[in-house]
Amino acid sequence: MVVSLRLPSLSSLFLPSVSRRSPAVLRRHHHRILRTPVFAASFSAQTTVSETDDRVDTQKSNRVQDQAVTPRSKDFNAWYLDVIEQAELADYGPVRGTMVIRPYGYAIWEAIQDYLNVKFKETGHSNMYFPQFIPYSFIEKEASHVEGFSPELAVVTIGGGKELEEKLVVRPTSETIVNHMFTQWIHSYRDLPLMVNQWANVTRWEMRTKPFVRTLEFLWQEGHTAHATPEEAEKEAIQMIDVYTKFAYEQTAIPVIAGRKSKVETFAGAVKTYTIEAMMGDRKALQAGTSHNLGQNFSRAFGTQFTDESGLRQHVWQTSWAVSTRFVGGIIMTHGDDTGLMLPPKIAPIQVVIIPIWKKDDDRAVVLNAASSVKEALHAAGIKVKLDDSDQRTPGWKFNFWEMKGVPLRIEIGPRDVSSQSVVVSRRDVPGKQGKVFGISMEPSVLEAYIKDKLDEIQSSLLEKAESFRDSNIVDVSSYDELKVAISQGKWARGPWSAGDKEELRVKEETGATIRCFPFEQPLGIKSCFMTGNPAEEVAIFAKSY
Amino acid sequence: MVVSLRLPSLSSLFLPSVSRRSPAVLRRHHHRILRTPVFAASFSAQTTVSETDDRVDTQKSNRVQDQAVTPRSKDFNAWYLDVIEQAELADYGPVRGTMVIRPYGYAIWEAIQDYLNVKFKETGHSNMYFPQFIPYSFIEKEASHVEGFSPELAVVTIGGGKELEEKLVVRPTSETIVNHMFTQWIHSYRDLPLMVNQWANVTRWEMRTKPFVRTLEFLWQEGHTAHATPEEAEKEAIQMIDVYTKFAYEQTAIPVIAGRKSKVETFAGAVKTYTIEAMMGDRKALQAGTSHNLGQNFSRAFGTQFTDESGLRQHVWQTSWAVSTRFVGGIIMTHGDDTGLMLPPKIAPIQVVIIPIWKKDDDRAVVLNAASSVKEALHAAGIKVKLDDSDQRTPGWKFNFWEMKGVPLRIEIGPRDVSSQSVVVSRRDVPGKQGKVFGISMEPSVLEAYIKDKLDEIQSSLLEKAESFRDSNIVDVSSYDELKVAISQGKWARGPWSAGDKEELRVKEETGATIRCFPFEQPLGIKSCFMTGNPAEEVAIFAKSY
Repeated sequence: MVVSLRLPSLSSLFLPSVSRRSPAVLRRHHHRILRTPVFAASFSAQTTVSETDDRVDTQKSNRVQDQAVTPRSKDFNAWYLDVIEQAELADYGPVRGTMVIRPYGYAIWEAIQDYLNVKFKETGHSNMYFPQFIPYSFIEKEASHVEGFSPELAVVTIGGGKELEEKLVVRPTSETIVNHMFTQWIHSYRDLPLMVNQWANVTRWEMRTKPFVRTLEFLWQEGHTAHATPEEAEKEAIQMIDVYTKFAYEQTAIPVIAGRKSKVETFAGAVKTYTIEAMMGDRKALQAGTSHNLGQNFSRAFGTQFTDESGLRQHVWQTSWAVSTRFVGGIIMTHGDDTGLMLPPKIAPIQVVIIPIWKKDDDRAVVLNAASSVKEALHAAGIKVKLDDSDQRTPGWKFNFWEMKGVPLRIEIGPRDVSSQSVVVSRRDVPGKQGKVFGISMEPSVLEAYIKDKLDEIQSSLLEKAESFRDSNIVDVSSYDELKVAISQGKWARGPWSAGDKEELRVKEETGATIRCFPFEQPLGIKSCFMTGNPAEEVAIFAKSY
Repeated sequence: MVVSLRLPSLSSLFLPSVSRRSPAVLRRHHHRILRTPVFAASFSAQTTVSETDDRVDTQKSNRVQDQAVTPRSKDFNAWYLDVIEQAELADYGPVRGTMVIRPYGYAIWEAIQDYLNVKFKETGHSNMYFPQFIPYSFIEKEASHVEGFSPELAVVTIGGGKELEEKLVVRPTSETIVNHMFTQWIHSYRDLPLMVNQWANVTRWEMRTKPFVRTLEFLWQEGHTAHATPEEAEKEAIQMIDVYTKFAYEQTAIPVIAGRKSKVETFAGAVKTYTIEAMMGDRKALQAGTSHNLGQNFSRAFGTQFTDESGLRQHVWQTSWAVSTRFVGGIIMTHGDDTGLMLPPKIAPIQVVIIPIWKKDDDRAVVLNAASSVKEALHAAGIKVKLDDSDQRTPGWKFNFWEMKGVPLRIEIGPRDVSSQSVVVSRRDVPGKQGKVFGISMEPSVLEAYIKDKLDEIQSSLLEKAESFRDSNIVDVSSYDELKVAISQGKWARGPWSAGDKEELRVKEETGATIRCFPFEQPLGIKSCFMTGNPAEEVAIFAKSY
């Protein structure tokens, strides 16, 4: 479905808006419809690429496709937007900064949900749902929370045709309404811990937007827990950042660095914020998930108390934690290349695509028949497999299309393969002939084992590649000058830090870099702050970020 | 988690608001907190019920619980709200008419999602996500759509601290934004059919609200499809109402009546609306799901065209279809009784609860040990089982609690049962001793088979009971007077109908009943309209409804 879309480039349409005013929605809308769909022409041209050989020359057909994709090295942002468009991950909504998540992009989000939902339940959380409309007065109850969120709020002022007496905030996050409810539900220590999660949409009126990375409305999960002791809350906050870290490494092959945020970067209303920071292909940092120890900030603001075992009334200790559709952006920007998206097998909606190839009509039935058998065998083995048997596109077009979509493995079956009862298997992550293996037996048990093995290999290989890229772009610094050099080279700087908020903001102003985190993994030995020379207990990582 | 909540009654707080003004949120909020939690006292009293026998006297402990539950026959609405509160399905949000879906209520919704999500994919639909903010001008494009929805809109007028140039509607449904996007994605017949679905929240500023049945914000799925021909669209609309019908019968044991809406009751913007209508325990009808053939109404309004095989530009033919969290209300009101919720096994988050029973401390370990083994065996057999081994509550309290929660089967294990290597099994749907069977072997294969068999029996029995209730409350009428009698008795009236909108509205004004549907299943033979005496091709069903 919706396989062949032809849309104008997103690049020019999803650029950061400079206006702080509302979008000129209709103007843009009309503009868009009237634009010449530039890719339509180049994309259609591909369908005429004739296949003169039993085996398709990928290199040649790729050249056609390349016209439509900005090279990553040339303009990372344009490349990112091109991939989102051509891999059919998302489209712009009619309102500035909003995003339509298309089926293929949504399937990646569903894979993220499927994994995390199980982990959340295994760790004792239940799903539930809180309303998205929050009385404005709630937001004002926690001082730093209102300071952090009030500039980004969307506000409902009219309901059922009437001006509302109290304005309603469209949730930017749910701590306030959660605490309002927790206050009614929690009475004694027996009601604790209370551990819930919701999958929901949230709204933040961002001025600089970018599909998946920062949109006016996005999808996320937000966990909220209440505990009887600060130790339990801390343990929970750490447990959930560990769940995210494991997820990032093992499912998405993103070698995030987990750590603690500086005070300046801590969530509005939290005591401590833990984060996972990922290095994108342009070496900017992406905050990919956070877990907050909220202490008693919200329980004090909302009077969320319980009677402890000795009969005393106490405020509960809380956490909240979230990952969002931003993670999809992280996957694109970690693994993608000039050919398009590249998906880690564990998160790929389609792990293997089968392309049948024939010239003569006589061969069609026998090739399709073999392709179907292979598909059934792999499907039965639990592999996510798609057979692209459409007559409307050439094999060359299909090769490009599924490479653009980042499918980890391609199986090619032509008449000669059927004769020899074998297939050709190509890896998305190893371009050209090097990634292509001929003569893999069609015999189900042999093929299944081979495919599963290759998928595991790709999964590991993507992680290794990303790790080595990350490690070669982190520079250990022992002076502010060294940090400046590293940041100006686009790298991350890691160095001992014990300076104050003022110095941190100075670094930001002068270099554009912020403290991404104090990583959990710390070097041994005595350190002194690269800024002040004072003793420093920890190293911090500085980087420019999304 | 959150097992023992003590809240003031929902009944007085979730009543239809008479004010058309915005909620006095804080007033109500404070009021609520200051209310004496009346159930807290009665509920706590239960924990002191002493167990003097190895076997608990359910009847006795029920009496304690009964104080807190309004009998269904006495006040159906109060009963409904009591069950929602005490079975911990939902709570009121801080904003008038909004609802917090609590973990147990949400688990029922998840069961609904799990089933339907698979069916939608099997029938060729992909999930995706459209933004919830819709430019106000979109809503105005389809004439009957704006007429139907404009009185119910929530409108965002402020974003990021600034007044917006164009007001944004919080989606009440997504046909307009879907068509805006379809117009950009659909070019030729090769892009059709386009079949998508989204799971999302929607907002309708309703004045008369009721948890699950009608709330300001609710959760639903909305399917949207575009086709090349009117026949395909009609086939799709019918296919999806069939999916809903099968779901209602087979999963929720609700014997809905599927049919077509009258013109008056057709969805704002649709050509035809198909519906499933369910009879609640108070014999009012609940519209539990709808599927709309939208014809070309939205494609004409939004210019959604495709080039057909002969090169002509045509407007697409569309459908949309939805079920919502309202279905949870339907399940409560179809099967519940004075003891609380009663869940069909196929939709129950917990199908079997195991209650260990012991008096002497010596017995505790051996009983808990046996209970754990039984739990593991049933869990391994794919049965959703919970062992309630908490020390904080008596078995009697647990019996009541899990009956209130509608768990289909209860297994009781005491020291004598362990000695005889057997258990006691009680059916939620057959009260007292009649529903209780002693001496079922603990041997895993025997017990599993017995439990699975009983779950199937309960599933069928609930459907049969609901069918017989429904059938005994539908009256065939051949005159308007007969209809008036039937409706005044609280029943549904079924009779031949070919009169116009005016007569239909007259029936509504004079009796409170509306045409629920022209059922797909029609009696044979010639008919004449009971209102006009003119020939009538079909019978219609009239009823009062939610």
